[in-house]
This record gives sequence, C-alpha cells and structure tokens, in this order.
Amino acid sequence: MRGKFIVIEGLEGAGKSNAQRVVAETLATHGIDFIRTREPGGTPIAEALRDLWKEGRDGEHTTDKAEVLMIYAARTQLVETVIEPALASGKWVIGDRHNMSSQAYQGGGRGLADLVDQIGSAILGDFEPDFTLYLDIDPAVGLERAKGRGALDRIEQQHIDFFHRTHERYLALVKDNPKAVLINAEADIEQVSADIKQAVERFLSMV
Amino acid sequence: MRGKFIVIEGLEGAGKSNAQRVVAETLATHGIDFIRTREPGGTPIAEALRDLWKEGRDGEHTTDKAEVLMIYAARTQLVETVIEPALASGKWVIGDRHNMSSQAYQGGGRGLADLVDQIGSAILGDFEPDFTLYLDIDPAVGLERAKGRGALDRIEQQHIDFFHRTHERYLALVKDNPKAVLINAEADIEQVSADIKQAVERFLSMV
Repeated sequence: MRGKFIVIEGLEGAGKSNAQRVVAETLATHGIDFIRTREPGGTPIAEALRDLWKEGRDGEHTTDKAEVLMIYAARTQLVETVIEPALASGKWVIGDRHNMSSQAYQGGGRGLADLVDQIGSAILGDFEPDFTLYLDIDPAVGLERAKGRGALDRIEQQHIDFFHRTHERYLALVKDNPKAVLINAEADIEQVSADIKQAVERFLSMV
Repeated sequence: MRGKFIVIEGLEGAGKSNAQRVVAETLATHGIDFIRTREPGGTPIAEALRDLWKEGRDGEHTTDKAEVLMIYAARTQLVETVIEPALASGKWVIGDRHNMSSQAYQGGGRGLADLVDQIGSAILGDFEPDFTLYLDIDPAVGLERAKGRGALDRIEQQHIDFFHRTHERYLALVKDNPKAVLINAEADIEQVSADIKQAVERFLSMV
C-alpha cells in the first residue's frame, strides 16, 4: 500500500524539529516505516540549490523570481527521486516544509502569489501532502526563539513585515485546506507535543 | 533610447561563436554600444546553476523538470540583473542562446513543451528578443563539429534522436517567429558570416 506524506509547516522558531520528533515517535509506535525530508534540500542537488539560494555567489543574491524557481527545482528533484519512490514502496514520508512554505513565504511574504501558484501547479500537478501540521506562532515570538539559536540566515534576516505577511498567508492556506490542522505552537512544549501526537493519531485512525 | 536584444540560437556546432563575432563587428561598425551574454549563465549565480546542471552533484543528475526550472532561474537572474538594465540604459545585448533554446531542447528534445511554455510565460511575460539569428545545421553535422572541440558535455552526450527532435522544434519556432531569421550554417564560413552580416544590416535598417 502506498505510504502517506505528512508535512510540518510553520514560521522560524515554531518548533518544527520537536514536531518532527513527535510525529516520528507516533508513527514508530504504530510500526510504520518512514523517512524524513527537509525542503528546500534532501538530495545532493537540492542541497546545493539551497546553499546557493541562502548564500548567493560572489556577493550576488538571487532575485525573488529566481528564488522561486530554485526552490521548485529543489522540490521537484526531491519529489521525483526521494518522496515519490518512498511513497510508492509503501514508506511514509515526514517532510520538514513542502509547497505550503512557498505559498506562504514567496507567495505571501514576497508578494509573488500568482507566480508561485503557476509554477507550483505546472510542476507538482496533483501531488500534495496527505496531512499537514501547521505550527502557529506569532512572528515576533518565533523570531526571538530563532535568534536564540545563533546567526540568522537569509530568510531570518527579513523585516518583520515579511513574516507578518507570511503568517497571514499561512493562516489563510490552512483555513482553506481540509488536510491541514493548526497547532498552537506558543503553548508550552509538553502541550504542543501532546497536541501534535493527538492530531497524528486522529489522522492515523482515518487512513 | 532603449537598446535592442539580439539572440543567436542553434544546435551544438552550428557556429554560434563565429556568429557572435560577426554580429559584434557589425554593431561596432555602426557605433552601437553593446554587451554580450551567454545562457544559461552570465552572472555568478547563473553560472553556478549552469555548472550544477551540467555536472550534477555527488553523482546525482537533475531530473528533466528540475533542469527546466534551473535554466529559467538562471535566465531570470540574467534578464533582471544584466539584460534589462543594459537595454534600459541604451546598450544593445548580443545573447548566446535565450528562451528559444529552452523551447527547442527542453520543449522539443525532452518532450516538455507544455511545461516550458508555462514556466516561460510565467517568468518572462512579454520579454523577448528583438531579433533572433537561428543558425541551421543538420544535427549529425553539428555534433561532428562539436566533437572536434573535445569532451562532450551533458547535452552533447544525448542520443542523436534528441537532437533531431530539438532541430525540428527549432525549425518550427523560427517559422512561427517574425523576429527570427534562418541562416544556413552548413555553408562555408565566409558565406555564413556574410549572411549573418547582411541579416543584421537589414535589422539595423528597420529599427
């Protein structure tokens, strides 16, 4: 039987790593075989695209449109060579970010919603996660947490308005997506973990 | 006054370097200030994308869809940061390949015409060359010439059928494009150079 694709989404500092761990433990409890991915990245070429996008080259940074294309190049490389084969072989996939991140960050944050929708639809077609856990956090709270981890990367250095636009888009996307659930990621970590576990258990009971 | 964008297109071994030289000399004779570009490439990020596409990473090669996206990422980076600013400042641009290459190689050769059209239209909008010189050569003849130059790269290693599909698409694209002219690139080099010079002079007389 084909595996399921579970994706964890959210702003910087929302707690995606902890969520990955909780989802993995819950699947393991049920004896489900799974792999983990992160986006953009997850294959040598996709990781090279991630680095080039984050670091630029010789002082040059990607334009917003090039950013969208590079992220989708990394995504299709990962989907075609890792995620699809895993799902086809019956394994489940736990993804750290997928298409909703592009819709929120590049679509909402950068204001390129039409371009993101066109590219996403041309590249992904009907492919989409079976279940999305969106970790909701106030952008300012999330950034404070992310700052605590050390140096900020290219995305984390954006102005706070960028994250507010991204956050609003995330909320709208989750509201419109029957396969997505919102987790209050500002609660204490035990509560967040319990909410994630419960959401995954509910998903498991339905498939 | 805005500059003009002249693009040289054609299969491997068609003589694009000689054509660049002839076009440059012709423009210089008329006192026209110009820059040259090559695609994919032409900026540090675009060249990095070209290398990653041609060489792959750790034994992994790009999927056909990732190839399309990476080439368009390099293209939009070059158009936005080099070609558009040059044209806006009144300089002309002589391009070694542009969008018609994607339509011919990825659209025709790889069979991804719909995807190439969707991405091209989403990224480039109305932007297109003012004049295209297509150097027409039989694929087998061109490949023999390219082989004479040394090691074959990723594209040059494709099966000859790939180049026949690419060639047929080139011919169809040029036929449908009133801003493109076909140059018989199998003639001797003096004749080819004279034909190119004449075509550029005719274009100059009309703008």
